[in-house]
Amino acid sequence: MDRLIEAIEATQNPSVVGLDPTEALVPPQVVASFEEEVRDSVESEEELPAAQLAVAYFEFNRAIIDAIADLVPAVKPQSAMYEALGPAGVDVYAMTCEYARQQGMYVLADVKRGDIGSTAAAYAHMLTGAPAPAGGAAYDPWHVDAVTVNPYLGTDGITPFVDAASEADKDLFVLVRTSNPSSSELQMLDLADGAKVYEHVADLVEGWGEGTVGRHGYSRVGAVVGATHPEEGAALRERMPRTFFLVPGYGAQGGTAADVRRMFDRDGSGAIVNSSRGIIGAWKRTGRYSERMSGEEALGLVADAARDAAIAMRDDLRAVM
Amino acid sequence: MDRLIEAIEATQNPSVVGLDPTEALVPPQVVASFEEEVRDSVESEEELPAAQLAVAYFEFNRAIIDAIADLVPAVKPQSAMYEALGPAGVDVYAMTCEYARQQGMYVLADVKRGDIGSTAAAYAHMLTGAPAPAGGAAYDPWHVDAVTVNPYLGTDGITPFVDAASEADKDLFVLVRTSNPSSSELQMLDLADGAKVYEHVADLVEGWGEGTVGRHGYSRVGAVVGATHPEEGAALRERMPRTFFLVPGYGAQGGTAADVRRMFDRDGSGAIVNSSRGIIGAWKRTGRYSERMSGEEALGLVADAARDAAIAMRDDLRAVM
Repeated sequence: MDRLIEAIEATQNPSVVGLDPTEALVPPQVVASFEEEVRDSVESEEELPAAQLAVAYFEFNRAIIDAIADLVPAVKPQSAMYEALGPAGVDVYAMTCEYARQQGMYVLADVKRGDIGSTAAAYAHMLTGAPAPAGGAAYDPWHVDAVTVNPYLGTDGITPFVDAASEADKDLFVLVRTSNPSSSELQMLDLADGAKVYEHVADLVEGWGEGTVGRHGYSRVGAVVGATHPEEGAALRERMPRTFFLVPGYGAQGGTAADVRRMFDRDGSGAIVNSSRGIIGAWKRTGRYSERMSGEEALGLVADAARDAAIAMRDDLRAVM
Repeated sequence: MDRLIEAIEATQNPSVVGLDPTEALVPPQVVASFEEEVRDSVESEEELPAAQLAVAYFEFNRAIIDAIADLVPAVKPQSAMYEALGPAGVDVYAMTCEYARQQGMYVLADVKRGDIGSTAAAYAHMLTGAPAPAGGAAYDPWHVDAVTVNPYLGTDGITPFVDAASEADKDLFVLVRTSNPSSSELQMLDLADGAKVYEHVADLVEGWGEGTVGRHGYSRVGAVVGATHPEEGAALRERMPRTFFLVPGYGAQGGTAADVRRMFDRDGSGAIVNSSRGIIGAWKRTGRYSERMSGEEALGLVADAARDAAIAMRDDLRAVM
C-alpha cells in the first residue's frame, strides 16, 4: 500500500475519484460529437449507440483526469459502467486506466471479483499482466494498481490476489462493510460466538495481509468500509491496525467528512475516501450548463466543475483531520 | 428458468460444459497456427501473445461447441480466463457466448458479479443489452442467458438482476455454498439463531425468486451449490423448493454423480451439473495427442475427446437419476 500512501502524502489529499460514467452524466453534445468518427469503426448500425457512448466515456474521463491529476492521488473506475456497453466499453475501461496512470495517478479497479482458486488466479492477472508465454515479454493490458475483491469464497479466493499483488507491487481491497442499505442482511448477522459476520470477515482480511506490511505500516490487503457506517468504521479502525481502508459512500450516498474522520489513524493516514457522482457529475449543479454549448465547451465545464468539487472535497476532509 | 429446463428435457442431459480455457488446455500448435493472422491486428509486438491466445481460445471453444451442441443443453464460459488476457480476451468471451447461442445452447455467464444498487443495475445490462438511447434499437453485446451473482451485498445488489432477468426472460444464479475448500470460512459460520450463514443466504435466495416462478415450478433466481457438499446440497434441495441449482465441483474437483443425485428433485429436475476441465481437457487423457499433429488435427482431437467425455458424463448422471 506504500505507493498509494505516498501519493496521498504528496497531494495531502486522502480522496479518490470514482470514474463511473453513465449516459445521464455525460453531456449529450459530447456523445453526439463522436457519431461520425465511431460510425466508421462499427460493423452494424445497432452497435453504434454503445460504441459512441464508450468513446464519449473515454473523452469525459480524460477531461476529468486532466483536471484533477495534480491534486487527487487516485481514481477508481467502476467496471460495471463500462461492461454495460459490452466489449467496446471494456476497451475504454482499460484505456481509461492507462491514461490515468500516464498522468501519474494510482488506479484502483473497482471490479469486485471473487472466485475459487484457479479462477481467482486468472482474475489476478489484472494485477500481474496477461499470462506470458515461455520466454515472452510481460504485457499488462489492464494498467491498474489495485482491485476490489469479494470475500464470500474464503481464503483460497483471496490468496491468488495477494500473491499477484506481492509479485507486482500492487494491492487489493476486500469488501468488509459495504455502504449500501441492504448490506446489513448478510454482513450484520450475529454469529454464535458473539461477533458479527463483517467483524469475522475483518479478522480474515487482517490475517490475509500478514506478511505484506509495507514501510508505512499497512499491508497490501485493504478493506472496503462504507462511510455510511461511522461507528462500525471507527471500531474496525481499531480492530484492523494493519489494514488500509477504501471508504465509499461519501457525498451522494450521504456520508460526511465527520463520518469518515475516525476511519483514519492517529497520523491521519490509513484510509482513502471515494466520491463518484459528487465529482464527475458536479457540472450538473453549476447552473452554467446549456444545451447550446459545443461538445468541447461542455467537456470544459465538466472539467472545471470536477476540479472545483475535488478541491472542495479535499478541503472538507482536511478540515476534520 | 423455463428455457433452461426445457433444454435439459430436450437433451435428457442435466449437464453444462464450463468453457474455461487456459494456455495449458489449448494444444500449442493451435495457438501457433494463428500467429500470422493475429500479428496484423495488434498495435505492438508485446500484445501478440495475449491476442494470439485469445483467438486460439475462440477456435478451441468453437470446436468444442460444435462437438457437443446436440447433446449438451448449456455452456458456462468463465469470465476470469478471458479477462486474464485483457480486452482482447473479453472480445472473445462475447464471441464465444454468441457462437454458443447460435448453435442453440443456453449460455450461463459465470461472472460472479456483485455490487450495490445503481452499479448492480449496470452489470445487469449483461442480461438486457446495452443501455439504449431514446428511440434507439436494442443491442445485446454479451449474448448470455444467465449470470452468476455474489450475495455479499444483500438485496439491493440482487434486485436489479432479478428485474433485468424478468424483463429479458433470463435467469441468475446466486452463490450459496461454493465447491472450494475454504468456502466454509464464511459460508459455514454458525449464526446466533442456530442456522449457518449459507442457510441464511439460501433463504434470501428463495425469497428473491418469489414472483418469478415459471411453468416448471422454478424461479428465475437459481443457486450455486457445490457437488463437494452432498449432504448440505440435499438439505438445501428441501429448503429451497423453488430454486434451481447450478452444481459445480463434479469431476476434476472430486464430486461424483452419487454426490449430486439428491440435489435433483423427485422428478429428476431442479439442477444442472457443471464440468469444465473434465470435458475441455479430455483430449489430454486420450493418449492420442502428438506434438506432430497440425493445429486442425489437434482441434479435431479436442472435439472428439470432449464429445466422448460429455456423453460419459451424461450417462453417469442418467445412471443415478
